[in-house]
Amino acid sequence: MGYYKSDIRDIEFNLNELLKVQNWKEFGLEENDIKGIISEYNKFVENEVFPTREPSDHVGVKQVNGKVIVPEVLRGVTKSYYDNGWFALGLPAEIGGTPVPEALYVACMSLATGANCAWMMYPGLSRAALNVVNLKGNEFMKTHIIPKMMNGSWGGTMCLTEPNAGSDVGSLRSTAQPLGGGKYLIKGTKIFISSGESDLYENNIHLVLARTLGGETGTKGISLFVVPRFRIKEDGSIGESNNVVCSKIEHKMGIHASATCELQFGTDGETEGWLIGDEFDGMATMFIMMNEARLYCGIQGESQGNLAYMMAEKYTKERVQFGKEILDHPDVRRNLLRMRALSRGMRALCLYTADLFNKAKTDHQQELVIGLLTPICKAYCSEQGFNVSSSALQAHGGYGYCTEYGVEQFVRDTQIAMIYEGTNGIQAIDFVMRKILKDGGKTLNLISQEIVSSVGSLDEVKFKKEKELFSKVLVSTQSIAQKISEYAKNNQFNLILQNCTDFLTFSSQVIVAWRLLESAKLSDEKIEMSTAEERKFYQSKITDFKVYCAHYLTHNLSIAKTILDFSDDVTTLEI
Amino acid sequence: MGYYKSDIRDIEFNLNELLKVQNWKEFGLEENDIKGIISEYNKFVENEVFPTREPSDHVGVKQVNGKVIVPEVLRGVTKSYYDNGWFALGLPAEIGGTPVPEALYVACMSLATGANCAWMMYPGLSRAALNVVNLKGNEFMKTHIIPKMMNGSWGGTMCLTEPNAGSDVGSLRSTAQPLGGGKYLIKGTKIFISSGESDLYENNIHLVLARTLGGETGTKGISLFVVPRFRIKEDGSIGESNNVVCSKIEHKMGIHASATCELQFGTDGETEGWLIGDEFDGMATMFIMMNEARLYCGIQGESQGNLAYMMAEKYTKERVQFGKEILDHPDVRRNLLRMRALSRGMRALCLYTADLFNKAKTDHQQELVIGLLTPICKAYCSEQGFNVSSSALQAHGGYGYCTEYGVEQFVRDTQIAMIYEGTNGIQAIDFVMRKILKDGGKTLNLISQEIVSSVGSLDEVKFKKEKELFSKVLVSTQSIAQKISEYAKNNQFNLILQNCTDFLTFSSQVIVAWRLLESAKLSDEKIEMSTAEERKFYQSKITDFKVYCAHYLTHNLSIAKTILDFSDDVTTLEI
Repeated sequence: MGYYKSDIRDIEFNLNELLKVQNWKEFGLEENDIKGIISEYNKFVENEVFPTREPSDHVGVKQVNGKVIVPEVLRGVTKSYYDNGWFALGLPAEIGGTPVPEALYVACMSLATGANCAWMMYPGLSRAALNVVNLKGNEFMKTHIIPKMMNGSWGGTMCLTEPNAGSDVGSLRSTAQPLGGGKYLIKGTKIFISSGESDLYENNIHLVLARTLGGETGTKGISLFVVPRFRIKEDGSIGESNNVVCSKIEHKMGIHASATCELQFGTDGETEGWLIGDEFDGMATMFIMMNEARLYCGIQGESQGNLAYMMAEKYTKERVQFGKEILDHPDVRRNLLRMRALSRGMRALCLYTADLFNKAKTDHQQELVIGLLTPICKAYCSEQGFNVSSSALQAHGGYGYCTEYGVEQFVRDTQIAMIYEGTNGIQAIDFVMRKILKDGGKTLNLISQEIVSSVGSLDEVKFKKEKELFSKVLVSTQSIAQKISEYAKNNQFNLILQNCTDFLTFSSQVIVAWRLLESAKLSDEKIEMSTAEERKFYQSKITDFKVYCAHYLTHNLSIAKTILDFSDDVTTLEI
Repeated sequence: MGYYKSDIRDIEFNLNELLKVQNWKEFGLEENDIKGIISEYNKFVENEVFPTREPSDHVGVKQVNGKVIVPEVLRGVTKSYYDNGWFALGLPAEIGGTPVPEALYVACMSLATGANCAWMMYPGLSRAALNVVNLKGNEFMKTHIIPKMMNGSWGGTMCLTEPNAGSDVGSLRSTAQPLGGGKYLIKGTKIFISSGESDLYENNIHLVLARTLGGETGTKGISLFVVPRFRIKEDGSIGESNNVVCSKIEHKMGIHASATCELQFGTDGETEGWLIGDEFDGMATMFIMMNEARLYCGIQGESQGNLAYMMAEKYTKERVQFGKEILDHPDVRRNLLRMRALSRGMRALCLYTADLFNKAKTDHQQELVIGLLTPICKAYCSEQGFNVSSSALQAHGGYGYCTEYGVEQFVRDTQIAMIYEGTNGIQAIDFVMRKILKDGGKTLNLISQEIVSSVGSLDEVKFKKEKELFSKVLVSTQSIAQKISEYAKNNQFNLILQNCTDFLTFSSQVIVAWRLLESAKLSDEKIEMSTAEERKFYQSKITDFKVYCAHYLTHNLSIAKTILDFSDDVTTLEI
């Protein structure tokens, strides 16, 4: 079995030193409390979550006599997760949660996700569904559903996709027919529903997109419904079957322990649901959950990439070839340094974004920044989490390709994060069309100014090469933004759409480099006064930034050329 | 199940139009004969090989009562492969083969490999072992082993790796103790042996690296032995067990249908072997096989990348979202164009390299060119075959992540090609240290001059951007080569080794761009006089070159900056 090792020092650096989340005084947490929570959470992950990772992948989810059975090994860890209060972490106090700074919650949840991504999807989706019910649900739901979801008796799902409505959610066909009193009869087939059915929970609360009569075609005619697997009696207890049938579970490349279900609503008897949010407002209501899910996809890449890196670091220090540890072979070392810079860069990005949720409570502009960073977190971290996982496998050589170290599982498990909750292509379109053009570039400008000032304050001597490179890249950023806004003025949207993935990658690398720059700058300030052990850590943060610049930010010069020289004379011809 | 579709037109273009392999008159094949062979081979692959791909992956290899059992579905296709004469294709006439131009053989074998990579490893390794026996074996081996390997009764393997001797072959510990008359007692454990045991063949001919007494430590003390699984009687018939025990089969991420074995020689009774090649010359003899295996790794990436692309092309023309086929969504189209350029670029590289084998018979300098291109084929095609496979999965969306289209299998099956037969890191070291520096840069210069002249002849108007870019890249190539030779002069080998993977990637992209350039130039000459259907094809070749330049060759400008600006002030610090 693989090793578990987490980069606690780097997590603490991000939370306590760089973001200083202890300054969110409303949570009453001092620096040491934060360290304590991370340490406890990490122990739980090491002792209870990680040991389930490989066994639950090998066993996988089974459908037996129509019932969906999760690997037995997941039962105990799920119970502990709720019983120990980890599910409650970061949720509002009024529903029994333990409010903490968002970045602390994300740092913890990332540890668990890295250690068993497929398992974490059960409580992860429940949490997202719970948030929707809490924000938009009626009193009955708040009284009877939320407590059950909080204590882990009931789980939650999001049901969007249908066989012919994947990226194109607007063409979904499921229907909802009013019964009065907010109740509806739901009919339709949903596919690829994570945690769609399982024996981990007594009941499932499905959030289902469907059409009521008289709505417009496309996304504007869609509403959201709360559809329990078993009906809920007036007193909140579980009633008869609500006729939601799992007609199939998918056989997948990875996340074998996560039940990916095809669900039939209302074909085998009547299925009842309640409208949640306003009629025809389904997409907006679902997006409360979707945005959380997109950030969570990013965490899936970030967390698994980070653990895969830690395993590779450990392995390459132990494996000896040609008379020395393979980490000391220059080519292996180069790969490890890249992996560390990339995986820590992803962490810095995700925790920074998480921290904006606290900022946004008083500064609403930060909501737009979160919106801009969401597709970056989702697409860049899922893609690079996959790449780091593949590099970690490579560092293990033939052993990595075999199942025994558990490292190949990262490649299989991260791949899906590039696809679900909006493919990375969809993220790129969202980023350019909605988050930049629809916004008139205001939010992009806001964050660009911050970056310009960060780069400006970088020491000319210690970071000479990096400062020059970053300045060049910022000039390119301007040129690209200008080019794209010209396309938009001329209604050349096809040209924009052909370049949006490249621009998303470019922007992601600017943002990650910036977060690593801030980390390096702070580390450089602290390094002189530190102990030997701490000096080593701070030096590693300076190294991360320099390595990221040399290997990734440099790539932006090429991407800029690709975008700026682009013409579609051959790309629109018939394939 | 997935679709099978091959890009026959592009294969014919490479063979008959670009390389003109019909001009190797010694094979007596006209253009139409070559087309006929490809067409017949392709039918065999479509009807007999491809249908085994997914089922054999699902069933996998099993070890039952100590015996290694391959998926039943592989039995018929293996028999057909030998019976129909496809195994004989490209082998010398004197052992019953059907000599054809090497590029034609590689093009055919690539079709079969793409359609079931794991299966193809059984005959593939047998062929490589057969070539060693044919070149270096004694009369007994030629009389009694070769005919059995030719008709498919016996298979072959290569046994290098031991638990503590992976990349570092020189530290292997298996021993060979002389019995007289060329016979030796073999003792040791070999791991990761592909086709190490199987019920597809009556007997296995293992080529085993081991140490005789009195040899030097390291690779210089190693010799190669022919070790059959069952002893071979004087009359060539199968005798008693030779006590080669398969002690374990590996559970792997992919190539489930290929038996990856741990083999024990001489632990459970005596194991006999014959020396093949000279004593202490084992590495050189094994490298006859290893070079073939490295090119074959490249083909594994190239072939699977190509088939994955073809599947994605078909799927994206059929799947409709937002009212049109998803191929017509600009971001999907952009990905498909990149995939096509890359996969056809790999094909052009591999077939060009194969063709040099025929050239090298009269022009020995071409052997050095083959040596230079071998690590490029191995590393670049395995890496990009993996990337194209991952992109093909992405183009299939959620369906791609599920097993039903068979596309996720490409990602799992291509990953290993980056590792075995010398990891891609080892390829990079081989490329820079042996193929360039040890050669004094002569072969690199030779091929560079050809490329400079190709680029010079490119039309200034039709390929303006590409010509400018390529010229810039060629200037960088000079600067990098100079930098590396300076490092070498100053004995700064650590600096070279930290950059060798980047330089290999850089060089690979120059070579692939050059092959696509030649394809585009020829297509541009032919396009005017062609039929509409042919014009569409030739246009696609021009597009491939332009797309490859815009998206991949451009990247070389960044890689050059990474290499030229490199300093190791932070990269050698403790991790």
